[in-house]
Amino acid sequence: MTSAPLPDPAAPTINSTEQWCQRPVGIVGLGLIGGSLGLDLQQLGVEVRALVHREATAERARQRGLATQVSTDPAVLTGCGLVVLALPLDRLLEPPAELLAALPPQAVITDVGSVKAPVLACWSPLVQRFVASHPMAGTAQAGVEAGQLGLFRDRPWVATPDAATDPEALELVQGLAQAVGAQWLTCAAAAHDRAVALISHLPVLVSAALLQTADRSSADPSADGELAGLVRQLASSGFADTTRVGGGNPELGTLMARCNQEALLAALDRYRSALDQLEACVRESDWQGVQQTLQRCQRLRPEFL
Amino acid sequence: MTSAPLPDPAAPTINSTEQWCQRPVGIVGLGLIGGSLGLDLQQLGVEVRALVHREATAERARQRGLATQVSTDPAVLTGCGLVVLALPLDRLLEPPAELLAALPPQAVITDVGSVKAPVLACWSPLVQRFVASHPMAGTAQAGVEAGQLGLFRDRPWVATPDAATDPEALELVQGLAQAVGAQWLTCAAAAHDRAVALISHLPVLVSAALLQTADRSSADPSADGELAGLVRQLASSGFADTTRVGGGNPELGTLMARCNQEALLAALDRYRSALDQLEACVRESDWQGVQQTLQRCQRLRPEFL
Repeated sequence: MTSAPLPDPAAPTINSTEQWCQRPVGIVGLGLIGGSLGLDLQQLGVEVRALVHREATAERARQRGLATQVSTDPAVLTGCGLVVLALPLDRLLEPPAELLAALPPQAVITDVGSVKAPVLACWSPLVQRFVASHPMAGTAQAGVEAGQLGLFRDRPWVATPDAATDPEALELVQGLAQAVGAQWLTCAAAAHDRAVALISHLPVLVSAALLQTADRSSADPSADGELAGLVRQLASSGFADTTRVGGGNPELGTLMARCNQEALLAALDRYRSALDQLEACVRESDWQGVQQTLQRCQRLRPEFL
Repeated sequence: MTSAPLPDPAAPTINSTEQWCQRPVGIVGLGLIGGSLGLDLQQLGVEVRALVHREATAERARQRGLATQVSTDPAVLTGCGLVVLALPLDRLLEPPAELLAALPPQAVITDVGSVKAPVLACWSPLVQRFVASHPMAGTAQAGVEAGQLGLFRDRPWVATPDAATDPEALELVQGLAQAVGAQWLTCAAAAHDRAVALISHLPVLVSAALLQTADRSSADPSADGELAGLVRQLASSGFADTTRVGGGNPELGTLMARCNQEALLAALDRYRSALDQLEACVRESDWQGVQQTLQRCQRLRPEFL
């Protein structure tokens, strides 16, 4: 006879806030991710101590109530049991000495970077209890005004532990993710980086190239003058959707390409093959080939939604 | 002294329904465009006579009230002053003899095809008062269930007259477009086809190739087994938006490619150059180049919205 497994009363309740936040949580950087995390954690009753770079940011963050305490002095992190590095990838990969010195030696340190292998390679040797992680939540906003309550709810939060990752540290970060309502999953850093190259970094370039094509082709001197105006008047929701990520934050797009160069180049190579095949069908008037490909794509897309 | 031009009381009020619909309007085909047009026109008090291919479609169209009269007999078009050919491109480009025979000799004939040069070439010699036009409204729906009120409101309705187009016939079609709330514009057929290749047909292929890339790369035997699941779990709104048109109606996508082959191949060629440039920047670690391109794209996109 089988039955549903009963809850084990001895199992740790890792998603209860009592369990994992006995001590203050530190957040380094109060942009979209750091600010949103600060708001959520305070609503859960957690004391949040935030370190920011500039006094003007600190002032605005205090006005917005993004953390219990906000300072430009790294000493604000003293006493934190968990520190979340919510920095842009470039600053995360070149941590200043004063930040490293201010991290409490026994604290669990995690990050929110959108590429994981270089972060793991950089930080694992620097701190004892490091957990590489990536909350996959975003809006078009950035900076100290961007943080919002509930950003992580039902969004994936991926951690990429390796053999050296402390299991207790990993569990603490899992507790954080689940406390803010995110869906926790773990995988190898290389698999994460290949996946985000395909679903996030490649689309930015594909989409940007489309915008450039519409602009350049219509501005071509061989086009009669009306084409440039026409493409702008006639572009509708399909074009708007396909170009949205290509018209997004240029600094973020560049950082992701730079930090995930190898996986992105591999994805681009694959992409070129797929487009070449479709173009060959069009050139050779193989309409059955075009239709079969588009039929496969129509079946495929719901798997990714 | 300058002043705003006063309305000319002698100017024809081409967008008043009284002006252009003294006689019934015929619609051939009651899919998304034909059905929506039938609903709008009836609401404006116009008598609509529709010709469809199959009796089952006629029955359902009657239940939905898509036209005043629906028949599979071409004679239903007798007496119409304007006939709208709301057929798929392939059927539009190979009109059956019985349809041609049933079109009232003095009626204005227009179409709704998404490619204009081949339609103009096919139909101009066949009927005396032909106007090639393209109402640019769409939803993900197709068929007799798809028609809806107000589909054309604030959407572009492009006509592509040539030297042989009867000006009065053009004015009648303009009246139709404006009566259903569309934004009327005219341009050369070749310019229209180049524009839609860039903003509509190219995006379908670009987007489909992206879906295939994500699928194939993650299914690669060299990938550890988790990648295929991971890309599906982690794909978010950016991937969903960029792949929407690639996962759309395969028959429609194929027809558009087939009927706009030359302009689409030219657009693909341009696209390849734009993507090659971006890829070269990534390969050569020219991050300034990537960032400058993405900055241009960020500035560019609002021009197309």
